[in-house]
Amino acid sequence: MRIALDAMGSDNAPAVEIRGAVEALKGSAGVFRLVLVGDQVAIEAELRRHPASSRERIDVVHAPQRIEMSESPAQAIRRKPGSSIAVGLGLHKRGEVDAFISAGSTGAAMAGSLLMLRPLPGVDRPAVGTLFPTLGGQTLVLDSGANVDTRPHHLVQFAHLGSIYAEDLMGIETPRIGLLNIGEEPGKGDERAVEAYRLLAADTRLNFVGNIEGRDVVWGNCDVLVCDGFVGNVLLKFYESIAEFIAGILRNDPDDGNAEPYAKRILDTLDYTKLGGAPLLGVGGVTIICHGGSPPRAICNAIQIAAQAVERGMVRHIEREMSRLAEMSAA
Amino acid sequence: MRIALDAMGSDNAPAVEIRGAVEALKGSAGVFRLVLVGDQVAIEAELRRHPASSRERIDVVHAPQRIEMSESPAQAIRRKPGSSIAVGLGLHKRGEVDAFISAGSTGAAMAGSLLMLRPLPGVDRPAVGTLFPTLGGQTLVLDSGANVDTRPHHLVQFAHLGSIYAEDLMGIETPRIGLLNIGEEPGKGDERAVEAYRLLAADTRLNFVGNIEGRDVVWGNCDVLVCDGFVGNVLLKFYESIAEFIAGILRNDPDDGNAEPYAKRILDTLDYTKLGGAPLLGVGGVTIICHGGSPPRAICNAIQIAAQAVERGMVRHIEREMSRLAEMSAA
Repeated sequence: MRIALDAMGSDNAPAVEIRGAVEALKGSAGVFRLVLVGDQVAIEAELRRHPASSRERIDVVHAPQRIEMSESPAQAIRRKPGSSIAVGLGLHKRGEVDAFISAGSTGAAMAGSLLMLRPLPGVDRPAVGTLFPTLGGQTLVLDSGANVDTRPHHLVQFAHLGSIYAEDLMGIETPRIGLLNIGEEPGKGDERAVEAYRLLAADTRLNFVGNIEGRDVVWGNCDVLVCDGFVGNVLLKFYESIAEFIAGILRNDPDDGNAEPYAKRILDTLDYTKLGGAPLLGVGGVTIICHGGSPPRAICNAIQIAAQAVERGMVRHIEREMSRLAEMSAA
Repeated sequence: MRIALDAMGSDNAPAVEIRGAVEALKGSAGVFRLVLVGDQVAIEAELRRHPASSRERIDVVHAPQRIEMSESPAQAIRRKPGSSIAVGLGLHKRGEVDAFISAGSTGAAMAGSLLMLRPLPGVDRPAVGTLFPTLGGQTLVLDSGANVDTRPHHLVQFAHLGSIYAEDLMGIETPRIGLLNIGEEPGKGDERAVEAYRLLAADTRLNFVGNIEGRDVVWGNCDVLVCDGFVGNVLLKFYESIAEFIAGILRNDPDDGNAEPYAKRILDTLDYTKLGGAPLLGVGGVTIICHGGSPPRAICNAIQIAAQAVERGMVRHIEREMSRLAEMSAA
């Protein structure tokens, strides 16, 4: 198994990526090789700061260009064929690697994956899933920003994509699927949610547990939470900001000098950059998107997730399920 | 000035309502009288537990029925003309009181207000505004649940409604209006957000500060944040749950027995039940909706807000602004 890692993606590239890569190789006994994609000189220089042994399972593929966060994703992918994202996804497309990971422009990694790996048959809108830490474990929220203006049947597709991810990657046998909504009862919500509820409830292949309100998210009452990418993205970004918000409240008390450990604990527990990145589900390959601010641990986690997705045959499972779904809708 | 208070609304009615009422009267020197609406026997019994002096500025209007949370709001209002909500709004409709407050069924208070107070000319969709505590003060988020499937011009109306509320009730001269969105730049978001941005930016009567992402909400970079009621409601309910979530994280550490004061401080700071209730903006009257779990302090705050809204002529200001807006759109 070979996994390509965009070495030029994160805010502290390539140092962070390479530390994450070395860490991941240390923890896994020969299961995979890593292909670092990016500026060869910079990568080699950084690699020399690590033990020579880690070099044995690392290949480097030169990519002279880099896509900036400010660029229009779809244009950048086309205009910069030599970018680390385009080169890495090209390797994946040609079967030279089995997965691709980037902490660079989310939009470009997504646009590139759609263009080069293509949506799987039966998938109208590949979706980005994000893991939310909750009091009851992790919940995969999808779509978390790739797709806005979705229709009800897209949410059903997201449910299937998420269900397979939860089975293969989170080890959950019959994942509980929730629909993000503004009331508990069927019939609540906007037109999209009302119809999505009906479709999800009628889908016997899903373990649909019903509507999940905003206040229920932190309790982790479902494993997969489906929603349109607009509300998913607002929720995700709000979630990412609360740790700092709460730490701010604790630190703002001038009469208490002992709040710091508690502020730190909250920041640590909810540190999303530690998590392993968000999978793009429904394309013909394994793409994992990491935060620009990822520390090495997040890159390492993303590599492990990618390896597991390949090992468990996640893409094949999604392909099988989605064509079955498409056949059923056609029938 | 007379303010009607649904005495049968909250989870602990009428005790909580009456304590809140007595508190509000104590704090204000003869500005208003309160009309308690509900079961006369229960109200009188509860009033006897308070000093007789507070009775001087309280009237009681009997309402034999009560709308339950489980009832369909629109039906309940029609089927229970003797409910505290219907009777209270009836008083407002006939001009016998100047404002109405309820901690009962939000849906019923809203449906009743639409039916009996009617939307003001030029207001397609009256909206519920909710105050979010932020690190930079309070932000009024609207719509926070009354309106789903909104169109872009509805969001512009929300912006005007919120702007006047912020001027009259929050004392802000030129309130900063933000659009809840999934990116900073114009052109980001779903179809509704893209078009709403264009309309808001072109509206010279608004101090539009642009898109506000989920992560920006807690910083309080705007005074009024407009959005469709679906995402607004998800965000609001999520917000309401984070205090308990974070307190749970702090309390869950078995090695630390000293976390409790910090958990409590977070719960206190973000205790939404303390806030004074959510105004329904755009109807021909002052309706304030409180949480079912409101403590007396929240009822007291809601009474003060209602009094201020009447005193400042909020409804007249909204009426003037919305008809001007309607004329401009027609021109």
